[in-house]
This record gives sequence, C-alpha cells and structure tokens, in this order.
Amino acid sequence: MFRIKDHIRDIKDFPKKDIIYKDITPLLQNPKATRDALKEFLRHLGDQKIEKVVGIESRGFFFATLLAQELNAGFIPIRKPGKLPFKTFRESYSLEYGEDILEIHCDAIKKGEKVLIHDDVLATGGTAAAACKLVEKMGGEIVQCNFLMDLDFLKGREKLSAYKVVSLVTY
Amino acid sequence: MFRIKDHIRDIKDFPKKDIIYKDITPLLQNPKATRDALKEFLRHLGDQKIEKVVGIESRGFFFATLLAQELNAGFIPIRKPGKLPFKTFRESYSLEYGEDILEIHCDAIKKGEKVLIHDDVLATGGTAAAACKLVEKMGGEIVQCNFLMDLDFLKGREKLSAYKVVSLVTY
Repeated sequence: MFRIKDHIRDIKDFPKKDIIYKDITPLLQNPKATRDALKEFLRHLGDQKIEKVVGIESRGFFFATLLAQELNAGFIPIRKPGKLPFKTFRESYSLEYGEDILEIHCDAIKKGEKVLIHDDVLATGGTAAAACKLVEKMGGEIVQCNFLMDLDFLKGREKLSAYKVVSLVTY
Repeated sequence: MFRIKDHIRDIKDFPKKDIIYKDITPLLQNPKATRDALKEFLRHLGDQKIEKVVGIESRGFFFATLLAQELNAGFIPIRKPGKLPFKTFRESYSLEYGEDILEIHCDAIKKGEKVLIHDDVLATGGTAAAACKLVEKMGGEIVQCNFLMDLDFLKGREKLSAYKVVSLVTY
C-alpha cells in the first residue's frame, strides 16, 4: 500500500530552531510515489469539473501543474509580489510577525470558472485563505482546496471553513 | 498547427525599463497548448532514458514536473540559497552585476544517473551552466538541456556548448 508519509522527511531546526520541517523532495524524487499522490488527489475530486488549478508559490507549483494536466485545466500561479509580469490583483494577509502579499494575473480566472486551489502544506491557512479571496474577487468558484499535508495543530482548516479541504496526510 | 509563440506574451519594461519580458502564463493557462509543448519536448528526447529531471527555480518547475512524470523519472528542484531544507551542494555563477548561487540536495543525483536539465528560458546561460556543473559534480550524466525558449542574442548556447541543447522557440 502507498504510504505518503514514507516519502516525507523530517528536517530538524529548519528554517529555524525547534521547527521540524516536512521535506517533500523524497516524494518528488520518486516518480511512482508522485503518481500515487496525484491519483489520491484525483480520487478526492471525483468527477467534479475543474477549469483552473491555482498553485501557490513555489512548492505548490509541483503538484498544481500535474493536477492541471490530469484535469485538462489551466494552471495558474499565485506568486509573491513583483514576480508576475502582467497586471495583477493583490491580497495581503497576516503572518506571525508582519504581513505578506500574494498576486494573481488579472486575466487568470474568468467569472464562474471552477477552481481548485493547491499548495503543498496547510499550516495556519493564511496563505490559502488569501489565495481563495483573490480567486473569489475575480468571480471564480472554489471547488476544493487540496494539500499534500496539513499540520493539524496550527488549525488551518478553521480559516478555510467555507471550503471543501482535502489533505492527503495529517501531522 | 501548434505554434508556441501564440501562447507567449510580450510584456514591455519588465522587470525593468527597455526589457521585453516573455510571459509564459498564457501557455500554462491553456491545457492543450501545455500538452503540445510537452509533446514537443518528448519528441526531441526520443527514446533516450532519463532518470532525473532537474527543474531550475522557479519557472523551470512548471514543465520539469510534467516532464518527470511523462518520463517516469524523479523530479529534482535546483533552488536559490536557503530554500532547500536538507544538506546541499552549492554553485555560484556570475550575473551582469554581482553573482548568484544555486543549491541542490546532496542526495538528489546518484553517480551515473541520466539527467535532463530544464528551465523556461535560456538567456545568458549562466544559470543553466551552474546547474550542469552541480549535476556533474555529483556524478550525473547530462543527456540534454531543454528550454521553452532561448534568447539567441544573449548567446546562452555558447556557455552550454558541451551539452545537447533544445529549445522549442527562439527569439
């Protein structure tokens, strides 16, 4: 049986002391494990129609591009400020200290389009919630938010309570 | 007929004045065009065996993940310093002003593995040449470097003259 946790590696004290970082590069390095994770995502989507898959910079890009191709949907990157070259919409959100900003191209989502939001990790949910706001401001309809993993103790699902949230594994 | 240039948009004065930036987000937004570009990459690889596909941060990640799945190969990110959580090898390279550094996880490539290097744009070739050096230091064998586009006037192919270089379109 495919166990995704076998392909996620704990890194102590990254990016700072007392944080155990969940490294997904062993999963990405293994084409069979990557395909199995992709299949799991697709299983959770069932036959729901998806027109755009939004991947959040930058580890969200890995599976978002794969999901978009499998779903025959467009891939849309959401990026940090100043990275996207065309006209953008922006959304700021709170961090533990200070705030951060996300951008999306203003022609990325059309009104009424069915959207899947993807990132690798659901932590506090601030980033994903900001991504959802951006998409909804553009008239997109969020079908699901999916993640490889969620860090349950950070209660990210509470910030996404308006949406269907899927995560393949929970820590 | 599929014309990739129809899906690449010129953005004037990005990231700074007098630069015409080639924006690939229209291509990524179109699943059929993305699939056609992917098929073109695969056609240029023929039946050569690839065990690892190295994608360069961050726009190189988009097609590198797709290529890795299609080729049943592992996907390996090469990133800016401090982003990869595990032990890394580093390579510095010159920019127009100053220098930059790339990192790869030290367990990413095994000796003798057949490697495809991918990035979205071949410009001066400095980044791709540094990526090749990293892979070769680890004992990897570079089968091909491929790019969505190359900016011919920047002569990037000269820095990669030791390798087979494929780019889908030239500007």
